[in-house]
Amino acid sequence: MQSTCIVKTYNVFDQNTTAGNLMDAATNSETPQDTLYEEIKSFFDSAPPLKDGPGISKKLNEFIERNSQATGGEGTGRVVCVTSGGTTVPLEKRCVRYIDNFSSGHRGAASTEYFLKAGYSVIFLYRRGSCQPFCRSLPEDPLLECFEVSEELNIQVHQSHSKAVKRAISEHCGRRPLVETSFTTIFEYLQILQLIAMSMRNLQTRAMFYLAAAASDFYVPWKSMLETDSNILLQKADMALKKYKMHVVVANELSTRKEKVVVVTSSEKISVLRDSTEADADIENPLIKLLVEKHSSYIEDSNS
Amino acid sequence: MQSTCIVKTYNVFDQNTTAGNLMDAATNSETPQDTLYEEIKSFFDSAPPLKDGPGISKKLNEFIERNSQATGGEGTGRVVCVTSGGTTVPLEKRCVRYIDNFSSGHRGAASTEYFLKAGYSVIFLYRRGSCQPFCRSLPEDPLLECFEVSEELNIQVHQSHSKAVKRAISEHCGRRPLVETSFTTIFEYLQILQLIAMSMRNLQTRAMFYLAAAASDFYVPWKSMLETDSNILLQKADMALKKYKMHVVVANELSTRKEKVVVVTSSEKISVLRDSTEADADIENPLIKLLVEKHSSYIEDSNS
Repeated sequence: MQSTCIVKTYNVFDQNTTAGNLMDAATNSETPQDTLYEEIKSFFDSAPPLKDGPGISKKLNEFIERNSQATGGEGTGRVVCVTSGGTTVPLEKRCVRYIDNFSSGHRGAASTEYFLKAGYSVIFLYRRGSCQPFCRSLPEDPLLECFEVSEELNIQVHQSHSKAVKRAISEHCGRRPLVETSFTTIFEYLQILQLIAMSMRNLQTRAMFYLAAAASDFYVPWKSMLETDSNILLQKADMALKKYKMHVVVANELSTRKEKVVVVTSSEKISVLRDSTEADADIENPLIKLLVEKHSSYIEDSNS
Repeated sequence: MQSTCIVKTYNVFDQNTTAGNLMDAATNSETPQDTLYEEIKSFFDSAPPLKDGPGISKKLNEFIERNSQATGGEGTGRVVCVTSGGTTVPLEKRCVRYIDNFSSGHRGAASTEYFLKAGYSVIFLYRRGSCQPFCRSLPEDPLLECFEVSEELNIQVHQSHSKAVKRAISEHCGRRPLVETSFTTIFEYLQILQLIAMSMRNLQTRAMFYLAAAASDFYVPWKSMLETDSNILLQKADMALKKYKMHVVVANELSTRKEKVVVVTSSEKISVLRDSTEADADIENPLIKLLVEKHSSYIEDSNS
């Protein structure tokens, strides 16, 4: 079998060992390399399960079937997988702390536009929140700031951003042979990249991988990560009150943070619960009410 | 001087040493604590310069002057500083790799809405890209997906998202005593927090700090960070070609990545430059052209 064409964008920081090894395995299956294979197998064996892998594969296979027919012209019938943005390495199973490789995703997004222009179909594998094709002309403000509601309650674009926003929406809406799928962690990145490699296998030389993502050069095996210890939460809250002279500590556990918090002061611990009879209720509603009361007492006490 | 009221949201992972110490210094200046002071001084001395500190202070002072008059009703004349989202700890001066504390910013954004409702003026110090007040009802898709261009070339909201988007834009547009400023790194977070503490100093007990940001519990002093070494770039590119069997490596240096890349193959190194005579030109334009040519040759070679 002919192998696909592989392009790696590279800057001085990249090591990319894991991704490089994966690509070896995916594309050079004719030359068995036992050690390498073991290394890759151990990465995938130790990874947390990918969410909706079959759904992603289905989407990819349908896209490739629809777009890989050469219908004339250079570039048609070719498929490029463009990866873009940085990957994270979680340091905990629940992913509160992680190491991140910064990458705006600008190169991947811009390159996607030019591959489409050249007649390629593009599978765009991007880091959530990174730069998107056809959106590079938008202002850096949060997108919502570009809009306003007219007197007739229609939404309109602020005069100042009108041209850029209309262009971005028109180009983004246009039908193009582009399919997008997103990742955050190094695990998701490599697992999805593997699915893409599988889907593109039969395209042989008509396939290209353009790996512009800033892949981490290491990972922490999933099974060796820290677990949370909920018992120490209130001890820590007490410590913060004393050591840092906080007036109030709002303590929560990660998994129930939207349902319950404990408001800790030097004299009391008050549990605050979300109003679970209402679907839309926020725990911040009773929480801020309680804090405003505490603040009022604090102001009164200091005046007396 | 009466001290301000301090509330810290806390989960089991937070340590928050640095932020806690800063708050000590900002609010307990009547009880000198030499060691603590030294620790804080050394943090700020070693931090990279904050961009536009005077501009931020000016904005804050004007906001507080405009909004700190008690005009009746509980909560009016009070100012709360809400911090929100995770902080990053850069591992390099140019900040390619960093350690991040994940936080969606949901609690800070929701709490801001309820403080405003209670009559407080809010200084919202948020991590770039984290959750914004009045935007929580928006769909999780990229915001741009909610819009389409009508036949008359007006922008309209997709039927399915119409209610949520109109509500978010209306609420976001509404005039409220809310000022926003953003951070990414632990350095920016604590430097801006210090500016806010200075601005709020005279409010005494009418001020509250509601620290919902997930502050890092350590930092790497700026002066001891790695520097980049551009000399090793092409060596690494060669290594990637050989070890990972890439067909092409696109090598760039961080600082010139939008102007110049070197396309490295096993037989040649080709410099690709952005067309600098055109302001809007992308380097990806000539880069992708070159790669498409290489891909065409690759397909031809494999067929012959």
